[in-house]
Amino acid sequence: MKRIAILGSTGSIGQSTLSIVESYADRFQVATLAAGKNLDSIYEQALRWKPRVISVASEAAAQKLHSRLKQAGVSDIEVVYGSTGIVRVATHPEVDFVVSAIVGVSGLEATYEAVKAGKSVGLANKECLVVAGELITAEARRQGKPLLPIDSEHNAVHQCLRGGRMHEVERIWLTASGGPFLHTPQSEFASITVQQALNHPTWKMGKRITIDSATLMNKGFEVIEACRLFDLPPERVQVIVHPQSTIHSMVEFVDGSILAQFSVTDMRLPILYALTYPDRIPSELRFPVMDLRHLDFCPPDMVKFPCLRLAYEAAAAGGTKTIALNAADEVAVAAFLEEKIGFDDIPRIVEDVITATSTADLESIQEVLALDIEARRVALEVVKQRSQTGSPIRAIS
Amino acid sequence: MKRIAILGSTGSIGQSTLSIVESYADRFQVATLAAGKNLDSIYEQALRWKPRVISVASEAAAQKLHSRLKQAGVSDIEVVYGSTGIVRVATHPEVDFVVSAIVGVSGLEATYEAVKAGKSVGLANKECLVVAGELITAEARRQGKPLLPIDSEHNAVHQCLRGGRMHEVERIWLTASGGPFLHTPQSEFASITVQQALNHPTWKMGKRITIDSATLMNKGFEVIEACRLFDLPPERVQVIVHPQSTIHSMVEFVDGSILAQFSVTDMRLPILYALTYPDRIPSELRFPVMDLRHLDFCPPDMVKFPCLRLAYEAAAAGGTKTIALNAADEVAVAAFLEEKIGFDDIPRIVEDVITATSTADLESIQEVLALDIEARRVALEVVKQRSQTGSPIRAIS
Repeated sequence: MKRIAILGSTGSIGQSTLSIVESYADRFQVATLAAGKNLDSIYEQALRWKPRVISVASEAAAQKLHSRLKQAGVSDIEVVYGSTGIVRVATHPEVDFVVSAIVGVSGLEATYEAVKAGKSVGLANKECLVVAGELITAEARRQGKPLLPIDSEHNAVHQCLRGGRMHEVERIWLTASGGPFLHTPQSEFASITVQQALNHPTWKMGKRITIDSATLMNKGFEVIEACRLFDLPPERVQVIVHPQSTIHSMVEFVDGSILAQFSVTDMRLPILYALTYPDRIPSELRFPVMDLRHLDFCPPDMVKFPCLRLAYEAAAAGGTKTIALNAADEVAVAAFLEEKIGFDDIPRIVEDVITATSTADLESIQEVLALDIEARRVALEVVKQRSQTGSPIRAIS
Repeated sequence: MKRIAILGSTGSIGQSTLSIVESYADRFQVATLAAGKNLDSIYEQALRWKPRVISVASEAAAQKLHSRLKQAGVSDIEVVYGSTGIVRVATHPEVDFVVSAIVGVSGLEATYEAVKAGKSVGLANKECLVVAGELITAEARRQGKPLLPIDSEHNAVHQCLRGGRMHEVERIWLTASGGPFLHTPQSEFASITVQQALNHPTWKMGKRITIDSATLMNKGFEVIEACRLFDLPPERVQVIVHPQSTIHSMVEFVDGSILAQFSVTDMRLPILYALTYPDRIPSELRFPVMDLRHLDFCPPDMVKFPCLRLAYEAAAAGGTKTIALNAADEVAVAAFLEEKIGFDDIPRIVEDVITATSTADLESIQEVLALDIEARRVALEVVKQRSQTGSPIRAIS
């Protein structure tokens, strides 16, 4: 029986994880849960799963949940809150496997502490690798425990890598859907509306990641994640556009053989893979191979999508630059969603912020979090300047 | 240093193997060679590779080669001949790895003896698995030595299987180019000429295998090979048509994940893979992934291509039926190439012969060879009947 902690249990990955636990009740059980502000949902989960510990966003929320549970006659669930609460959920002695699925930097410290406590960790949180990848992967190596990617691309890479050894890998090929603007001329990018940008062709996701998919920044983050997770330099992580997103990613070996992975586009599959690795267990998530008709590919356009180029540059420069990249992008996307800046301003803002960030080695999660805050401050300043003047953004000093 | 025996050294696979040995002279050396009637070519190979033993087709050929080598001042090569000669080449104590690439049943006994002698064997000879698969794989299991497939499809499967364990395999997907008549209406099959049938879209190969590709019998043989090699029932080996032949084959696991392999269409790649397994070593055989544009797929049409259906039926019925399938097909293809029968008569003749063959367990290679001879006799009779009367072929009693 594998005892599972879910960081972000009310989100999409959290719910998919719980659906897997439900389907395979003989193999998995919920040990602890961490959620945010959706109190009704976490209350339901508490009654259904009876975890040892639940963490919520604030002290007030914790008190509210505690009294609701008491009214329902449930008194043996420990309710905690805040960042120390998430760490408690992630490092609880009765946890074997941690699913890290809190969006943003709030899950960072808890994920790092889980790795440090020797837990097996499934990573669905992009920030863990983008902003603190070096620290987390180094700690996982020290612990000799696997970091299992829970997203279709890196999970595909993880599967394909089984066809050889790490020193036999020539490069990784991440596939990209290309987003909704694959065929839109660059001249029209300035007038792209929020609604157009939120219309992703393949996956239904949160707003930020949908915009990041439209700018290809999301693919850029994935390049950085792949570099960290698989310990490869950026030039050995390539992107190829594949609009159907059928093939989730590929690995090219030194002998010239390439392995590709595909499956239905359902997040339960990478979750199941991560939870059962190195085993595979039967699922009903079957891809109808006989219905395959056409798969299309083309190279990515880094001029039309400068975010991808910026991500490669940040990946090559290392730690502090990728923190700036992520923070600046989050701020810029929020400004775009609020219609303060244009779609084509997103890469401009990001470029300004990463240019203003100096490179340095990172030694602790606290340092990472401080740099993240500073990068956001700079990004907000650049956005303000842009939205006030309406003039093209220039690098700040 | 891996010491290699090549059964069929002057053929296409044999030459590709020698080119690999040449490229990686620090890893491989030629220990022994077996060839057929191309005496000039085997003489050149003898001078170039200085093997311990060479086997040729006949005593006369052996004497001729021996005296030519003597004239050239080479006296330390043992020249042998015939079926005992091939066995000597395959089981020589200084051989570590045997590449089995003699077309037809002549390489069967030697391959079996090589497995029995504990050699690692790379299989490029289809007959080994189609007609004697049960015997050879059982012996390889007893010896605990790998049988490594040297053809693009099974080699691809072998690579994809590394992504899980055998009991985690749901099914294998062999890709088929579909041959030159993929889009030809069935009504035109009777009038297909030899020249049309020899025009294969992807690979340049020998005549029989080219016709077998046009009838999809070759894919049928590959289904049988896959069943034997990977110990799966025929219903778990599926075929999907993929005209570009970019993806060489796929493995679907029980969790719903599918791994696919692709690479340049160059036989040196599966040879290199087999010779170096479980390692991979760098080659210059690179697939230009960035140039990928379109991959197309469609289900196979077993009505239009009855040979594929017949192969599935023979695979399900077992040993004697697959011997009959192979023998009848070889005879029928020869008759088609001599313009004695029509293209659409090939499956008719094959079906008659396998219907006339009873099922039985096979216990020795000698039994296999005797059944092969008998099936050929029956097939020749059916062909004769057909070419004399010109009437539709009926099952013989």
